[in-house]
Amino acid sequence: MLARVRAYLSADRADAIIIPSNDPHFGEYVQKHFCIRAMLSGFDGSAGTLVLTLSEAALWTDSRYFIQAEAQLKGSGIDLMKIGVEGVPDIVSWLNARFDDGCRILLDGALISAAEYASYNKKLNARVVGIADPFDEILSEREPLYFETVILDPESFSGLSVAAKREMVFSGDPADLRICRILTRCDDIMWLCNIRGSDIDYNPVALSYALVFSDKILLFACKEAFEEAALEYLASQQVEILPYASFYDVCGEMASDESIHFLSPASSTSMRLESIFADSRHFGYESRSEGEVAYRKSIKNPVELEGFCKANLLDGIAWCRILKYIEDNIETGTLNEYSIAQQLIEYRGESPDYRGESFEPIVAFNANAASAHYSANSDEEAAVVTAQGFLLMDTGAQYPFGTTDTTRTIPLSELTPDQIADYTAVLKGMIQLSMASFIKGTTGYQLDILARQPLLSLGRLFFHGTGHGIGHYLCVHEGPQNIRMDRDSGVALLPGMVQSNEPAIYIEGEYGIRTENVLVVEPFTENEFGTFYRFETLTLVPIATSCIDREQLGDECAQWLNNYHRRVYEKIAPHLNDEEAIWLKNKCRPI
Amino acid sequence: MLARVRAYLSADRADAIIIPSNDPHFGEYVQKHFCIRAMLSGFDGSAGTLVLTLSEAALWTDSRYFIQAEAQLKGSGIDLMKIGVEGVPDIVSWLNARFDDGCRILLDGALISAAEYASYNKKLNARVVGIADPFDEILSEREPLYFETVILDPESFSGLSVAAKREMVFSGDPADLRICRILTRCDDIMWLCNIRGSDIDYNPVALSYALVFSDKILLFACKEAFEEAALEYLASQQVEILPYASFYDVCGEMASDESIHFLSPASSTSMRLESIFADSRHFGYESRSEGEVAYRKSIKNPVELEGFCKANLLDGIAWCRILKYIEDNIETGTLNEYSIAQQLIEYRGESPDYRGESFEPIVAFNANAASAHYSANSDEEAAVVTAQGFLLMDTGAQYPFGTTDTTRTIPLSELTPDQIADYTAVLKGMIQLSMASFIKGTTGYQLDILARQPLLSLGRLFFHGTGHGIGHYLCVHEGPQNIRMDRDSGVALLPGMVQSNEPAIYIEGEYGIRTENVLVVEPFTENEFGTFYRFETLTLVPIATSCIDREQLGDECAQWLNNYHRRVYEKIAPHLNDEEAIWLKNKCRPI
Repeated sequence: MLARVRAYLSADRADAIIIPSNDPHFGEYVQKHFCIRAMLSGFDGSAGTLVLTLSEAALWTDSRYFIQAEAQLKGSGIDLMKIGVEGVPDIVSWLNARFDDGCRILLDGALISAAEYASYNKKLNARVVGIADPFDEILSEREPLYFETVILDPESFSGLSVAAKREMVFSGDPADLRICRILTRCDDIMWLCNIRGSDIDYNPVALSYALVFSDKILLFACKEAFEEAALEYLASQQVEILPYASFYDVCGEMASDESIHFLSPASSTSMRLESIFADSRHFGYESRSEGEVAYRKSIKNPVELEGFCKANLLDGIAWCRILKYIEDNIETGTLNEYSIAQQLIEYRGESPDYRGESFEPIVAFNANAASAHYSANSDEEAAVVTAQGFLLMDTGAQYPFGTTDTTRTIPLSELTPDQIADYTAVLKGMIQLSMASFIKGTTGYQLDILARQPLLSLGRLFFHGTGHGIGHYLCVHEGPQNIRMDRDSGVALLPGMVQSNEPAIYIEGEYGIRTENVLVVEPFTENEFGTFYRFETLTLVPIATSCIDREQLGDECAQWLNNYHRRVYEKIAPHLNDEEAIWLKNKCRPI
Repeated sequence: MLARVRAYLSADRADAIIIPSNDPHFGEYVQKHFCIRAMLSGFDGSAGTLVLTLSEAALWTDSRYFIQAEAQLKGSGIDLMKIGVEGVPDIVSWLNARFDDGCRILLDGALISAAEYASYNKKLNARVVGIADPFDEILSEREPLYFETVILDPESFSGLSVAAKREMVFSGDPADLRICRILTRCDDIMWLCNIRGSDIDYNPVALSYALVFSDKILLFACKEAFEEAALEYLASQQVEILPYASFYDVCGEMASDESIHFLSPASSTSMRLESIFADSRHFGYESRSEGEVAYRKSIKNPVELEGFCKANLLDGIAWCRILKYIEDNIETGTLNEYSIAQQLIEYRGESPDYRGESFEPIVAFNANAASAHYSANSDEEAAVVTAQGFLLMDTGAQYPFGTTDTTRTIPLSELTPDQIADYTAVLKGMIQLSMASFIKGTTGYQLDILARQPLLSLGRLFFHGTGHGIGHYLCVHEGPQNIRMDRDSGVALLPGMVQSNEPAIYIEGEYGIRTENVLVVEPFTENEFGTFYRFETLTLVPIATSCIDREQLGDECAQWLNNYHRRVYEKIAPHLNDEEAIWLKNKCRPI
């Protein structure tokens, strides 16, 4: 296959091609059709960039994938470039060492943001040329695009009509301007159009683009895949469906219409899209970096929030069963990480509303949990789980009325003082953030330290974000707000925003601990000092108390935990059988 | 006087003049010589801008000064413009309503930053013309500039020679570049040159400018005012003293020297200074907004830190005496806010090292404390202090080895539940920030919430910063780092930075509570997770415990407070007489 790509380069007189990992929709997961880098290199981790020249090939990936990439690239003739390792050149240096300003480097312009493209062009000696996806011709074995059934997301779940959402999205714009919002992110489009698909793993979205006006929407998707109810509803809401493949052409036709102001989110405007509007003075970025639609989507309405509660209730029932199942079977030697994940899926499947997992389930035993994204995909890969140390489980599900995401770390035996201190610090951080009150205008960046302080006081820290937004029967990772320490999203937390809260600690080669609830921002009080918000917890899954250092946790956090457990028991117990209910009562005992 | 300024405007064919409040050194306090706005308007608050046209005059000030300005402007013919009040135009709108692009508006170019000047020129229809200070000619009654004695700040207090400081400041620059750092802030110059003056209230600085090279310093100051020891020392450290008034001329002469790269901090580069270098391609802003000297100055060396400890010990002794004095005399009816401040100054003065207050002392009884910067200047102005409610005292002192800043709120009677809850929340916030641990790279903006959380959980908040940097026998407010919620300084807290910690609550018409300690950042631990820092407390003044809600405070904070009080007692008691020591022992009892 590499030879065929090189033949293509030769025919085009190009010197190299850069092949990234994403698709033109800038989502987290990608259809196989777009996994060209994996296809060509054999390395199928989620992150990596392949660069191919006429005589060489190299693949850049980050530390999560060093071992996997090394194994999968063996014998491919592709050099592994370990990002961040001293002495390993980055893509720009590597290319500059080989190509000067007479050279041409190709890159699919739909797969790179305009900003990244500009940065490449500034730093590279050679010229970077944006091309349209060439691989349909080159790689006959390429997986075809597929478009699964698109269903209606009824207003009884979404809470608002498409017309009402459109009105909301355009409400802040000057009345005398005809604005067209360009959407390339599938989840934005699903939310706005009250539809759901299943073209991508874990994310219930249909591959699509949209051009959104205040009075109509042009939806670029596979019309044949839409169920009748969806077609009827969309027609009633001034949504016109055009062929998925015609998106760029229609943009090209409209670009010259000077009566329209085009707006696109900076973070999801591809170089290809921007080049279409290069001559238009009527094109600009949305003032919010992820755009107005993503912003409005992040603020859940009361109907959506009711759905989140229902989703967490159903998920809480399944979680209680899996936690009891593990406890009942831990001594048998028959449990492994994969079988536990499958068993949880089975429990979830007992609800007719279950629509699948919201991400690849993480069930990780002791040292395996020290990698934050470890996941075993089969019984063979999976570690046997015995009564020793910790088991970390981070899984979530899709329901038509909400998405869940929960992490629990389960003590399986007596623990060391360090393990107890770490477990308690992680939990205390999770609780301190849950208890936070804050004034209107506060961002997650300002609250983040509340979740980290107990770990920091032990001289320990985790390096991922503390919290991400969560979609409503959509992507489990959703912007634009977040709770992080490394950068400020600049987006204030507002009532209705649904947010994960997941402090953690990872001790390499030993164990990982993470405790995650999902929170929603709600109004607290309004007075002469201003408008105050706080969090309410949506998750309803018991938290192990046997390994808590009560003194380290402190009274305030203990009281929060006892109140939480009282609520978990009250909500979940009525849905359990007697034996399960007794088990849960014990788990929810005050400490 | 207004008539004479108008005559000057007429003669110059100008339409208006803008007169700000600051001096050319961009400090917090200003010599009378520069108080032109106060002189012309009669309004002598610290913040205000006067605009004078041929027929009108208006003065803009903020809400702190509405009442005072109203009184002082009465009958002056100057309109009061209340900043932030609905319907009140800002300076730009007011000027644009009067003057179009044929008009000229004058402004002393040394009193406005280049950035502010650019903003004026962009928004104003009329042309803004930068002029040199014209008031020596116009206002014969103007106070003359004065230059008080400049003394040596010996290395036994400063910890480093001027040469060593110079080397530190230039250590990050490319070796092949001849760099000249331009300093206009007097405290930067005092620190760098190991000298102190007393040209400005509360800030022990001499009026000065400097041009700093890696191998020498040109110091623009009044040489006649320097004591012999200072002159000798400066000569030995390659510091050449030139006349204060020659600064701009020397800059002008040097500007054309293309072998020199000039660097000036963005925040203290005046329009006048920048215009001198307008034609030079070798002029730019320092990469740190307050400049390299201010940054190095903020990181105190071990000798400076030892001095801070000594200063806080001396100040702690005086504080204990004033607290006991208030307690002993509260029932007599003889105490007032002013007399208490004077008594504290007297106690401080018992130490031969006392060099004066570090800012205008704040002693505020009940409702008076609800304005954060209230200060009574005489017995007549001051409220009588009786055994009722709270007394807030925020005062600090200058010692040759350090500067102090302490706030205590003293309960004078039984308090209401709200007062107890507020007092406890403020204290808890102060303690939570004191206990913080954090990873290298963390800014005050990220820690701020720790000090506010207990208040936020009551639906209350204070709106000033939580902490400011503190100079070493220099300005009590010092950058570039801070702890605030409204904006991120972008400056990470580093070991050696000295920082106030002063959460508060203000209930209008009722009371104000503020508790302030001074902290220094120190190393905590270094391990596989990174480099961790924490705070140590420098202040040694007991904190009232009688009005604490022990349950609300929590065990962790109570333990911190008990440890703190043990240390206060151990350090201070040996310097008190028996009666005082017994009193202190009681105040430091564990709760």
